[in-house]
Amino acid sequence: MSNGRHLAKGGYSSSSRGPVSLKGIESVFVGSPIPDVPEDGILRLYSMRFCPFAQRVHLVLDAKQIPYHSIYINLTEKPDWLFDKNPQGKVPALELVREPGPPVLTESLLICEYLDEQYPLRPLYPRDPLKKVQERLLIERFNSVLGAFFRASDGGDLEPFWCGLDTYEKELSRRCTDFFGGEQTGILDYMIWPWCERLDLLKVQRGDDYNFDERRFPQLSQWVERMKRDSAVMAFYMEAEVQAEFLRTRSAGRPNYNLLVKEA
Amino acid sequence: MSNGRHLAKGGYSSSSRGPVSLKGIESVFVGSPIPDVPEDGILRLYSMRFCPFAQRVHLVLDAKQIPYHSIYINLTEKPDWLFDKNPQGKVPALELVREPGPPVLTESLLICEYLDEQYPLRPLYPRDPLKKVQERLLIERFNSVLGAFFRASDGGDLEPFWCGLDTYEKELSRRCTDFFGGEQTGILDYMIWPWCERLDLLKVQRGDDYNFDERRFPQLSQWVERMKRDSAVMAFYMEAEVQAEFLRTRSAGRPNYNLLVKEA
Repeated sequence: MSNGRHLAKGGYSSSSRGPVSLKGIESVFVGSPIPDVPEDGILRLYSMRFCPFAQRVHLVLDAKQIPYHSIYINLTEKPDWLFDKNPQGKVPALELVREPGPPVLTESLLICEYLDEQYPLRPLYPRDPLKKVQERLLIERFNSVLGAFFRASDGGDLEPFWCGLDTYEKELSRRCTDFFGGEQTGILDYMIWPWCERLDLLKVQRGDDYNFDERRFPQLSQWVERMKRDSAVMAFYMEAEVQAEFLRTRSAGRPNYNLLVKEA
Repeated sequence: MSNGRHLAKGGYSSSSRGPVSLKGIESVFVGSPIPDVPEDGILRLYSMRFCPFAQRVHLVLDAKQIPYHSIYINLTEKPDWLFDKNPQGKVPALELVREPGPPVLTESLLICEYLDEQYPLRPLYPRDPLKKVQERLLIERFNSVLGAFFRASDGGDLEPFWCGLDTYEKELSRRCTDFFGGEQTGILDYMIWPWCERLDLLKVQRGDDYNFDERRFPQLSQWVERMKRDSAVMAFYMEAEVQAEFLRTRSAGRPNYNLLVKEA
């Protein structure tokens, strides 16, 4: 069916070494059969193209150059077989097809931690237990920041999101490195990125209300530009206008999970 | 001041090898100075005697026989210096006094994961990344179970808590071992124990409404009895009547953090 790269048909796509084009992949919806993914022992990621939590897992898989098949799900009309894979019907979900069962992992952060331990090349977490727990605490703390993002994206106050980002501006300034991970990206970079990529989405959504202040966030502003040149980020990057259009279709009660298919 | 064990005065207690009596320790409240804990390089745990999340950290420290000083906090009238240690003023918080800073860790599960990595003797997590993430997923999933516990303890429906426990009954039955950790306790045993110890609390609180069914939970019932004989569990065990009395004082707006002091 495929030699693994740049495939974009039949409800799944595959990535092996390096970025893959994600345009043109149809999302699987209720009544759809399981996509005809080859039985090649490669990880299967059940995902949703517009979901920032799923994006975390794509980023880690791509950063570590772990081959995987992506199967995009229409979350409004989930196919029945998804519940057999994963009784909660959640995405992201990673199916470890080589393991007996096979097990299906959920929870974006836990999946990423598993991947970092199981595939030790290009480690994303520091090895030192203290440095490691400090990264985890900053990831944990970001949960309230992403909550503030969602409220801002929904028309709420922007300031709580900026307040949340203050911690990360200060931390990056303290570290004096290009990335939170040091000279290259690490786990914290990838776990917070999906909501930082969406700064442009907020700009589109909020128009004149958008008041991101580069003087308040000098380090984060430069970091965002650096991140946009990272190969894993580029592989899953989405233009703000497309994100905004998806959210508009969702607010209207008819989410278009296949917006990118039209672009193929 | 102390040779490290069974001390119970001046607002802190110390534990080195094995169980320590926790009776008679006063909680530190607003206006209190930092307790006069020796500068001996031993970990300091800021805790609250009736807090199930703090209990998780005590259990792991005791199970791994890591020496530490406990400093109990009156959470209703927090001392000012607590915010210097930890701007969020949360407990449990673990101060790593030997490290530069010194850093203060928060979040019960993250503290426990740090301890398991930093002190590799008597490991609590499986080493295999897949088995490890499966334990983490079961711990994560318990968050909704403990939410159901709190609602039941507050007078709400008991059934959602039983439903939550079904997963753990099934899992223990599937594992066919004495503990979730196997032949000895592991991380999952200790992370869920604080709410299972409080089954007796629910019994005291709910009286005739209490409908725990041993036929529904044959494995968990035996596991509870085994856990009650575990040395780490015994070191921090509290009678249900004392827990219930604390909650009564708290509901009445005058939480008595020093209930155990009266008993000393």
